[in-house]
Amino acid sequence: QRLRALFQYKPQNIDELMINAGDLIYVDPTQQSDVSEGWVIGTSHRTGCRGFLPENYTEKAHEADTWVKHREYVFETASRSFIKTEKESNVKLNGEAHNLSTSRSVTNVLPLQNAALRRGVLVMHHGERVDQVFGKSWLQQCLTADGKYYRADLNFPSSLPRQKDSMKQFECDPPLSCCGIFQSRLIGEALLDQEVTVSYVYSSPALRCVQTAQHILQGLKLNQKVRIRVEPGLFDWTKWEASRAIPNFMTVAELVEASYNIDTSYRANFPLSSLVPSESYEDYVSRSSAVIKQITTACPSKAPLAPFFAFPGVPGVILIVGHGSSLASLTRVLAGLPSRDSRDFAQVVQKIPSLGMCFCEEQKEENKWQMVNPPVKTLTHGANAAFNWRNTILED
Amino acid sequence: QRLRALFQYKPQNIDELMINAGDLIYVDPTQQSDVSEGWVIGTSHRTGCRGFLPENYTEKAHEADTWVKHREYVFETASRSFIKTEKESNVKLNGEAHNLSTSRSVTNVLPLQNAALRRGVLVMHHGERVDQVFGKSWLQQCLTADGKYYRADLNFPSSLPRQKDSMKQFECDPPLSCCGIFQSRLIGEALLDQEVTVSYVYSSPALRCVQTAQHILQGLKLNQKVRIRVEPGLFDWTKWEASRAIPNFMTVAELVEASYNIDTSYRANFPLSSLVPSESYEDYVSRSSAVIKQITTACPSKAPLAPFFAFPGVPGVILIVGHGSSLASLTRVLAGLPSRDSRDFAQVVQKIPSLGMCFCEEQKEENKWQMVNPPVKTLTHGANAAFNWRNTILED
Repeated sequence: QRLRALFQYKPQNIDELMINAGDLIYVDPTQQSDVSEGWVIGTSHRTGCRGFLPENYTEKAHEADTWVKHREYVFETASRSFIKTEKESNVKLNGEAHNLSTSRSVTNVLPLQNAALRRGVLVMHHGERVDQVFGKSWLQQCLTADGKYYRADLNFPSSLPRQKDSMKQFECDPPLSCCGIFQSRLIGEALLDQEVTVSYVYSSPALRCVQTAQHILQGLKLNQKVRIRVEPGLFDWTKWEASRAIPNFMTVAELVEASYNIDTSYRANFPLSSLVPSESYEDYVSRSSAVIKQITTACPSKAPLAPFFAFPGVPGVILIVGHGSSLASLTRVLAGLPSRDSRDFAQVVQKIPSLGMCFCEEQKEENKWQMVNPPVKTLTHGANAAFNWRNTILED
Repeated sequence: QRLRALFQYKPQNIDELMINAGDLIYVDPTQQSDVSEGWVIGTSHRTGCRGFLPENYTEKAHEADTWVKHREYVFETASRSFIKTEKESNVKLNGEAHNLSTSRSVTNVLPLQNAALRRGVLVMHHGERVDQVFGKSWLQQCLTADGKYYRADLNFPSSLPRQKDSMKQFECDPPLSCCGIFQSRLIGEALLDQEVTVSYVYSSPALRCVQTAQHILQGLKLNQKVRIRVEPGLFDWTKWEASRAIPNFMTVAELVEASYNIDTSYRANFPLSSLVPSESYEDYVSRSSAVIKQITTACPSKAPLAPFFAFPGVPGVILIVGHGSSLASLTRVLAGLPSRDSRDFAQVVQKIPSLGMCFCEEQKEENKWQMVNPPVKTLTHGANAAFNWRNTILED
């Protein structure tokens, strides 16, 4: 077993191992019998030294990491060179200056054989929603006296999509904040950077999820190629988000009208009418379990070589944009793990940040899935408070 | 005096006024004598009703707001039509879908006469810096065993600028995080949206400030037109940020090499060599006072009609990107207010968020400045925590 150090660790005892972030550490499973909880005995690839190290300072290393240092071989396929061309004309969101020293560390190299042969399911939490920052009254803060939308803070979106009913429907189906758009775009760019092949995209019908999927696809430069399948069966546990009534979501026609890249030919497994307010936990678990099985069945491991598929012949990744609950309810069942009880479930879901993600990889045996590290890193940032210059700077 | 309601307020007493966000309220200063602290008596333009309202639910309304409802007249000048052309080809950072209902509320209309006649000084706090999120050891978290930069979290920049010395110099002069880049770009776009004419840009020599200025200019689509003047006199109180030694800032040549738009002909008022570690508060106050006077003197109210100025003949806004301390130390002296004592100063500076800003407008009498509402709204967003899928989702 090989680990990669995430952080530096300086030994505090003579029998401990010095590690730097990025170090590879070899761990012999047969030698771990006398080791206390949270520690492992390992040998550093860099120094050749051996000693105890804290396991939570490390992650499981990709198999590829142990050999790409010596020789790097790229499997050139049609789909890969296609992505390359796209990337060269890519203007990054963060718009950084051009003459930067680009240090491509070994960790950026994906195990390409795996990427080419195995299917993956990437389940993601949507980005920051406006009511998360501005509270339930966010829409009131943004309406002028004559009922027009007005951007009361720069983190509100510059406008709201047009829809048939009153603006009030967004109260139960809030959009992403600008920060949520930034988060989604950044994740899409990181997936592109890691050359992750996203072949299918599914989204909960909640506007924030469709928007997250759209901005991830834009970051991936796939927004013209892969269309979003809106699946009501992916909506949150209705006891939380729809205790009295299912929100009046934007229809597929309205989403298309608002320039979202929706797969209009997709037939949902769970039509909207099948969602019931305040469903029981058991109903939610069985809906989630059914929908993930239907999705993995509908996205075969070898897609037909047809021109309307973005990446013919490459199984690639199925991206599912849902809610915090989706990470707990979709991935464990796929990996063959039992579902949690409803109290644990609620506690787990609270901890899931914006764009938090879980990744399941199909094993050699078809329809056997295992949870592994997602193809991109975490996204961690701070909060920003509103600033009142008058109270803070002007007044004494 | 006219106020604009920022939030809805529902009366809790018979003598209070119902207000909605966006409402205009007329306040007669002669009628406020019997009003308790924090309240005003006003008349709602929308309802015609009169009553008490909480003052902190409102902001001072632009003079223009009271008449643009009836008739809108745009002063067409060379510089304005120039901006318009730029804007039409503008692809927004947040990349929103095209067919959105664009509701241009009255608050978007600037009092253009003012913009055309008066100078403004906009002092801004830089964006989120990496060490603010990841702590002092941020660089250690990002270095591989062989000393190469590696993006350990997606909020770290994708690469660091090249500079002459070791990467270690960034420990004392940290760059923006990706979130900081997002914040800066958003503010630049909002300034463009409000058609604010930025004629001069000054920055502290700290990398995070130069980067913030660069991304604001990109958001403004001015990065090819207005160059950044790096002024060491704008650096933070050295007692806080340079207690032992002045950081080894990137040189102007290095910044240019890294594609930052630097005004290489600019001669600093305070050369780097004049900064001393751990200066006294009095020295900091007098440095700040000198530098803001030198800047406003160097940017005349009527710039010469020469082709190398972006906006000939339009005084416009002087943008100063500095530190939290800059907002407190530069604007009060410009507005003729006494400086705070050092303890109050420290407390005030702590409250200033990323991209917090203060705006001073020149009065009819030249070199008389008054603090007024900045031309764009605040930016408020939440934090995002790192996510450990293994502990949260996989393990029981």
